[in-house]
Amino acid sequence: MRPRFELVAAEGAARTGRLTTAHGAIETPAFMPVGTYGTVKAMTPEELVELGADVVLCNTLHLLLRPGPAIVEAHGGLHGFMHWQRPILTDSGGFQVFSLKSLRKITEEGVRFRSPVDGSEVRLTPEDCMDVQRALRADIAMALDDCTPYPATESEARASMERSMRWAARSHAHYHREPPPGGLFGIVQGGMHPALRLASLETLLKLDWPGLAVGGLAVGESDDERLAILEALVPHMPADRPRYLMGVGFPEDIVAAVGRGIDLFDCVIPTRHARNGHLFTATGEINIRNAAHQSDLGPIDPACACYACRHYSRAYLRHLDRCNEILGSRLNTIHNLHFYLELMRTIRTAIAAGRFEAFAAGYLAARKAAAGAT
Amino acid sequence: MRPRFELVAAEGAARTGRLTTAHGAIETPAFMPVGTYGTVKAMTPEELVELGADVVLCNTLHLLLRPGPAIVEAHGGLHGFMHWQRPILTDSGGFQVFSLKSLRKITEEGVRFRSPVDGSEVRLTPEDCMDVQRALRADIAMALDDCTPYPATESEARASMERSMRWAARSHAHYHREPPPGGLFGIVQGGMHPALRLASLETLLKLDWPGLAVGGLAVGESDDERLAILEALVPHMPADRPRYLMGVGFPEDIVAAVGRGIDLFDCVIPTRHARNGHLFTATGEINIRNAAHQSDLGPIDPACACYACRHYSRAYLRHLDRCNEILGSRLNTIHNLHFYLELMRTIRTAIAAGRFEAFAAGYLAARKAAAGAT
Repeated sequence: MRPRFELVAAEGAARTGRLTTAHGAIETPAFMPVGTYGTVKAMTPEELVELGADVVLCNTLHLLLRPGPAIVEAHGGLHGFMHWQRPILTDSGGFQVFSLKSLRKITEEGVRFRSPVDGSEVRLTPEDCMDVQRALRADIAMALDDCTPYPATESEARASMERSMRWAARSHAHYHREPPPGGLFGIVQGGMHPALRLASLETLLKLDWPGLAVGGLAVGESDDERLAILEALVPHMPADRPRYLMGVGFPEDIVAAVGRGIDLFDCVIPTRHARNGHLFTATGEINIRNAAHQSDLGPIDPACACYACRHYSRAYLRHLDRCNEILGSRLNTIHNLHFYLELMRTIRTAIAAGRFEAFAAGYLAARKAAAGAT
Repeated sequence: MRPRFELVAAEGAARTGRLTTAHGAIETPAFMPVGTYGTVKAMTPEELVELGADVVLCNTLHLLLRPGPAIVEAHGGLHGFMHWQRPILTDSGGFQVFSLKSLRKITEEGVRFRSPVDGSEVRLTPEDCMDVQRALRADIAMALDDCTPYPATESEARASMERSMRWAARSHAHYHREPPPGGLFGIVQGGMHPALRLASLETLLKLDWPGLAVGGLAVGESDDERLAILEALVPHMPADRPRYLMGVGFPEDIVAAVGRGIDLFDCVIPTRHARNGHLFTATGEINIRNAAHQSDLGPIDPACACYACRHYSRAYLRHLDRCNEILGSRLNTIHNLHFYLELMRTIRTAIAAGRFEAFAAGYLAARKAAAGAT
């Protein structure tokens, strides 16, 4: 089914809503844990539900390479393959191809790249991308985009954006050739150039999308540049459709973007940082590998109610990390995902109560102070 | 408290019983999953309880090296450190030192070895060993033994066994110097020489132990040699105390040893094999890495009721393994531990119903046939 969005409450640009899919509803603003290969690293689906994840993101390009769309499709799609019964969003692979750099070749047709898995040449056109995402049967699919590098001149960013718009139209046409398994989101590009962003949005809006994403951010730009783009762009995005800021970010980035009207986020930071021992706390980040935690009988965060903080000491978690124990990655991931998903709950509650602005100001100041103290 | 053993039922040499500790009862025959560093690899304690594990084994030598006994003791012992509230058995480190080979030096005082972690010299006397296990506060501790190599001449095996017996007496004296946290088991040595085994047992029985172990097996001997030792030794071991066969083994080894009167087992096979993709099934073992499973939509074992078999296909598990996903290790470990713990339940039920002999004959024949078919 086509995802359906309803606004629930708004405070300034910030808003709460509900995005309903065939696999249930996503309360927004929402954070999507990343399950690159059809698994949010170290987690079971039941644990994600317990943590309050409404939706996960999977990476089309990775799943195209391993295990390939045919095997996922034989399971009835990603939901059956990975035993996750809530909504799934698949990205288009545009950003992943962009990350391959020297291994890729971009033409009007699409992209060709060497598989990092086996070195074979892989082609991904907008049509291929839709076929793969159709096989994955995600609730939300993304149009193939050409992710503009940072920095880029105005003419480079324009050419890239215009290519993305032609690919978006091809994606849209191909995705809807047969009754689609879910809904397709378009992606606004245009680099750090507000006029190009608005032109991209205007082009996209000639077609019907159940949601729109802001792509080409979180690619190396400063926080100020990112927020300037959001401030120039988001007020012009349709208020009745969800807005997804791809690949963002740290907790403070999320809070700031919600304040500019963003509804959906994804990022590998909580899960990847967890496996590297970087843990988020109410008073800043800690690295569990630090010798300071060697004999610390206290939890990661006394203010945290997650499974890891309820039952395990910093000393135990540091020990697990030193011994490369899988349970260490598990507990750290539970903690960081809880931190992010709890933040999203707090954000939604604050907006509904009309006190998001005050919350955001306090939160951003506290994060800044904590970062300064580290 | 001192562990208390009661016999529940017997059929020939096989018996069921209940070993009660301060942290609850262990239904025997029991398999103890191995939690080397204070974590059964990839598992939470809650998952182990769900799988039906009554007891886990932790490795004294590993915990001595990392994180060190003081840190575990500061958590009130291993139970608090690792958040496991059921019984814990700690080994003595004798077998681990034995495995270090060239890095170790054995004298009458005890052993000295280079730490594989940081190269420092570590001393482990029977008294040190008791102090470490006391700090770990296990329900069952093991006397320090000198593990006889295989093969060994009669005089080598005798000298090694006699040293183990002197160390056992020193362990016993030191462990009971203060009120102990649990009970201390003695370990019978004597290599492949039945007369030495009986002499070792006779020496041990001059002291009071709440349980006895058979050490120095699973070191490279044949199945026939191992069973011959058990048949010569076990009938002379006190019937009112639990008998623990250390480091054994494959499912068929466990069934055969239960038939000779063994009550307790530990082995890394189910957990280590799981992480290497070797999975046990009712019809033999499979390696999930095999290309044959690439598109297999069926579970590991249609006869299995574990979480992995209820929700995931072989194709998905193979994909997780290829991508080095932590969830793959988790699901494989759940499956293999379920296989072992379900086997122990089946064994206990069969003995209680007086049909263990028939069960064992059928099981061993089926395992042999499955191995031949692979």
